[in-house]
Amino acid sequence: MNIVMLGSGNVATHLGKALQLAGHTILEVWSRTYENARILASSLQAEAVADVSEISRQADMYIISVSDDVIADVAALIPAKDKIIIHTSGSAGIEILKPYSSRYGVLYPLQTFSKKQDVDFKEIPLVLEGSSEEVELVLKEMALQLSFNVHFLNSDQRRILHLAAVFACNFTNHLYALADNLLKDHNLKFDLIRPLITETARKVQHNHPESVQTGPAIRNDKKTIDKHLELLRDHPELQEIYKLLSQSIVNLN
Amino acid sequence: MNIVMLGSGNVATHLGKALQLAGHTILEVWSRTYENARILASSLQAEAVADVSEISRQADMYIISVSDDVIADVAALIPAKDKIIIHTSGSAGIEILKPYSSRYGVLYPLQTFSKKQDVDFKEIPLVLEGSSEEVELVLKEMALQLSFNVHFLNSDQRRILHLAAVFACNFTNHLYALADNLLKDHNLKFDLIRPLITETARKVQHNHPESVQTGPAIRNDKKTIDKHLELLRDHPELQEIYKLLSQSIVNLN
Repeated sequence: MNIVMLGSGNVATHLGKALQLAGHTILEVWSRTYENARILASSLQAEAVADVSEISRQADMYIISVSDDVIADVAALIPAKDKIIIHTSGSAGIEILKPYSSRYGVLYPLQTFSKKQDVDFKEIPLVLEGSSEEVELVLKEMALQLSFNVHFLNSDQRRILHLAAVFACNFTNHLYALADNLLKDHNLKFDLIRPLITETARKVQHNHPESVQTGPAIRNDKKTIDKHLELLRDHPELQEIYKLLSQSIVNLN
Repeated sequence: MNIVMLGSGNVATHLGKALQLAGHTILEVWSRTYENARILASSLQAEAVADVSEISRQADMYIISVSDDVIADVAALIPAKDKIIIHTSGSAGIEILKPYSSRYGVLYPLQTFSKKQDVDFKEIPLVLEGSSEEVELVLKEMALQLSFNVHFLNSDQRRILHLAAVFACNFTNHLYALADNLLKDHNLKFDLIRPLITETARKVQHNHPESVQTGPAIRNDKKTIDKHLELLRDHPELQEIYKLLSQSIVNLN
């Protein structure tokens, strides 16, 4: 297919590369910041477009990868009402695209992307939704070229999935960051806990997390918990997080 | 060396196996619960000991892997004041063993162990402390047979490391569990986010977590945050965790 990418962030970058590898042609890249469009376009042998009004009408699909707030604004500018328009957001509904085309859908790649870190798209769950069977068929065929892991969910389910991902990925990474800072404050290296982080993620690949919970809270080891809170006496925010998550572990079990 | 294991929990189980694989002899296993001692002893071709007073005086090393509260009680019962006594706790100090032997130390394996999940000991950071150079040499030689990843830290540093591990491992696993429950409530499978969990851990193996943070909080995407809080309206505890961690992400950056 001939595809126009609207957006140049992490998702657009990784998805654009994967689509190109699968044999699709990225015609053009548009971004609010022209310089970003230029960088991504150049890596995809595509044209960078400065003004949305200049976007090609000849593409088969327009992929909008921008923040939720501006999906509708960007969709409104696409000059081809009969072409497939999709967005890649976990939390925006499919209906947001309805005013702008008769054929629309969603392709939500459930992964954490950083521009500097390559990912293997084949493993990434791609969560699809289409405005019609025809669109769903097109999306499914395309998605299966990119990944072994393709699912259809409606917008409500996708929102829950996105929310669960915030807990399992964004908040988790932040806990890594808090641990990193705590170690740094005491001249200890983050390297010390990297194997632990790997193993913690590995353990839940074949178990449910509740069944492999470890640590002082699950043992109801109040002495250790109190010692930890005392160690955090100069970090009230960490103390609060420690208390809330420990209590939540106790409540769940 | 001839070793007596005191305790039969996750650490004792995995450490005992690793020591045996490295060529050491586990003479005996004692545990507060005799049945647990029997199970572990049988897997290590060792004797299970029901009564602490019957523990062999002939071992070179006594390894105490019990909860912090009872380390001193167990150490007091070891009938060999000139033998090396060590504990495996992250948060108990080395000095807790001082009254019970002239040679004592700590071997803290920084990993999350579950009895049912095998681990590769070679990758596990082993954190050591000894009461003398002689003990530290014995511990170092033994630790290097078990792992490539051996460190000496004092008790204060080890406590910080243990605390950081609670954030990076125990709390992280609990966030996985909260995500799992959220998905379950909406008939969605945990399988959907397993690849995301793997990638989140993989990303910080070569980056510091702060530099790869993603999600609505780091983008200051208040609309998405509000939508998520609305989705959690029937889960006040999850709402509170969501707010606190989102605010903490904002504060750190």
